[in-house]
Amino acid sequence: MTTSTQWHLVRRPHGEPVDADFALVQAELDAPGDGQLLVRNTFLSVDPYMRGRMNDAKSYVPPFELDQPMTGDAVGVVEAVGGTVSDATGAAVQVGDTVVHPYGWRTHALVEGRHTRVVDTELASPSAYLGVMGMTGRTAYAGLVRTAELKEGDRVFVSAAAGAVGSLVGQIARLKGASLVVGSAGGPEKVQWAVDEAGFDRVVDYKAQPIAAGLEEAAPEGIDVYFDNVGGDHLEAALSSLRLHGRVALCGAISAYNATEPVPGPSNLFQAIGKRLTLRGFLVSDHEDLRPEFEQEMAGWLADGRIAWRETAVEGIESAVEGFRSLLAGGNTGKMVVRL
Amino acid sequence: MTTSTQWHLVRRPHGEPVDADFALVQAELDAPGDGQLLVRNTFLSVDPYMRGRMNDAKSYVPPFELDQPMTGDAVGVVEAVGGTVSDATGAAVQVGDTVVHPYGWRTHALVEGRHTRVVDTELASPSAYLGVMGMTGRTAYAGLVRTAELKEGDRVFVSAAAGAVGSLVGQIARLKGASLVVGSAGGPEKVQWAVDEAGFDRVVDYKAQPIAAGLEEAAPEGIDVYFDNVGGDHLEAALSSLRLHGRVALCGAISAYNATEPVPGPSNLFQAIGKRLTLRGFLVSDHEDLRPEFEQEMAGWLADGRIAWRETAVEGIESAVEGFRSLLAGGNTGKMVVRL
Repeated sequence: MTTSTQWHLVRRPHGEPVDADFALVQAELDAPGDGQLLVRNTFLSVDPYMRGRMNDAKSYVPPFELDQPMTGDAVGVVEAVGGTVSDATGAAVQVGDTVVHPYGWRTHALVEGRHTRVVDTELASPSAYLGVMGMTGRTAYAGLVRTAELKEGDRVFVSAAAGAVGSLVGQIARLKGASLVVGSAGGPEKVQWAVDEAGFDRVVDYKAQPIAAGLEEAAPEGIDVYFDNVGGDHLEAALSSLRLHGRVALCGAISAYNATEPVPGPSNLFQAIGKRLTLRGFLVSDHEDLRPEFEQEMAGWLADGRIAWRETAVEGIESAVEGFRSLLAGGNTGKMVVRL
Repeated sequence: MTTSTQWHLVRRPHGEPVDADFALVQAELDAPGDGQLLVRNTFLSVDPYMRGRMNDAKSYVPPFELDQPMTGDAVGVVEAVGGTVSDATGAAVQVGDTVVHPYGWRTHALVEGRHTRVVDTELASPSAYLGVMGMTGRTAYAGLVRTAELKEGDRVFVSAAAGAVGSLVGQIARLKGASLVVGSAGGPEKVQWAVDEAGFDRVVDYKAQPIAAGLEEAAPEGIDVYFDNVGGDHLEAALSSLRLHGRVALCGAISAYNATEPVPGPSNLFQAIGKRLTLRGFLVSDHEDLRPEFEQEMAGWLADGRIAWRETAVEGIESAVEGFRSLLAGGNTGKMVVRL
């Protein structure tokens, strides 16, 4: 028997999540059955989209169930194998392998082998498979390449440029021929990182000036693509800045995730008519077909040192909720993970 | 010399246009020069988009100039021809021909032949070339077929279902295989016309109940396509109703055209992410390549009596401004025209 320490959602948060919405619970895990793996998690992912799953709202992913362990991506080491087990790609899984799987928010997990993927820890560190080589990277890639239909020469604006997805969007845009890469970030430290390390041309500190004015200075001729992680005033500023036939990839709206009242939408959406704009929402899970292309390109960029990548880690399973709340408040640069 | 009576914009309206924003002016027209036509207008078009041109705002079409005649589509009879004149398609133009051209808001116009099109008044009445067979019809067709990518079986919702564009959107959707055609209109008379004559399955009277509740009743399983002529609460209701991979053609936002303060956008735009919605603005002028296909299909439908079509006409050049203001207030069923 193995004991797993896991986070349950015990109450649906109203606005900002508070400690009483969660409980840390011990559970005993059986030995893996046939086709199963026992995994000791080493890194857990916390992501903004999880806030939506805490609500009891009809949505594209079912809400977290109350008094059950929450889920999310995790990376871990295989401690025991039930018979002969293959991962999602058909590769054999051995004790000691590092796998990525969807049973995060806990220290140990019993997982069907086919729900895991063995990852190459020589190519990238284990936690990178929650970030630059994982869902985060695929989100940036799919949203930019497919949803926003990035073209060479495009002027690109991305919000949360020091965040996990945003920092990759800017860099992928540059590597794929964008002529201008502008971002937004909150505070001088994040701005500096995005410019110096992630290579953004200009980054607006939205805490120091209104984003609309900042964007107009940073991209005086306007933008062709906006990758939206934020919603709110950022989307409104982008709609004003977008040029004819501009495109918006709607990825997230973190500014509203903790809102308890409806947040007004952009008052200038009508500009989409005259400028023939396209706004399109997307989920990375729709673009599984891009995975091989993404993994090959990203592995090459990483090997060549062409991608700057940063993590903010909190330590220990006890810190997972605190890490998640800090993420929603913008306390991270790059990918937020929990190190176990 | 021919005297033309024409409407000038003499002041930019603030909010709802008032009489003092316009002046009726006499101008003397020369005989047509080489390649020109003298046209006696018989019908003038007034359209919601003209409200935008009255503002001094950077937009996709330049604003009307002050103290100059306003422009817009018109139909008229050729009274004199300067030499040998061809229309936009290369067809010869003779005295007595009926042409459609962009110099409305006046009784007579001197027009370059290549800016006109000779129309077939046996196929449809002259004023139809401002409506069902003209820009109005092409707008409905392009927005539905191309921008909203209508597919057989789609559930379609269109606002302003008793309006010029909206009434055609519903009927074209039905003819092209929509499984449900829902509209909105203001007042029982318009609702009845849209259901009885234009063949909508259900039409919500947005003056009698909130559009969100009405749409939920009318399309309990949701919609796949929304054709937006209105903006505001209609767009918000549609975003809630739209199903996975739904599409919105943004055509107009008449609810905000006279607004003097920014109108908040839809508070539920974030639903576009989870439902992977596409919102796309369009102008009919971008889809000139669809014109032959549109004209052939629409002529066939008209000949077969499969399109219901209605006009609201005001009489005389003096009434043009009043007709335009009435249009913005929803005083029309079908296409609003000025009969001279």
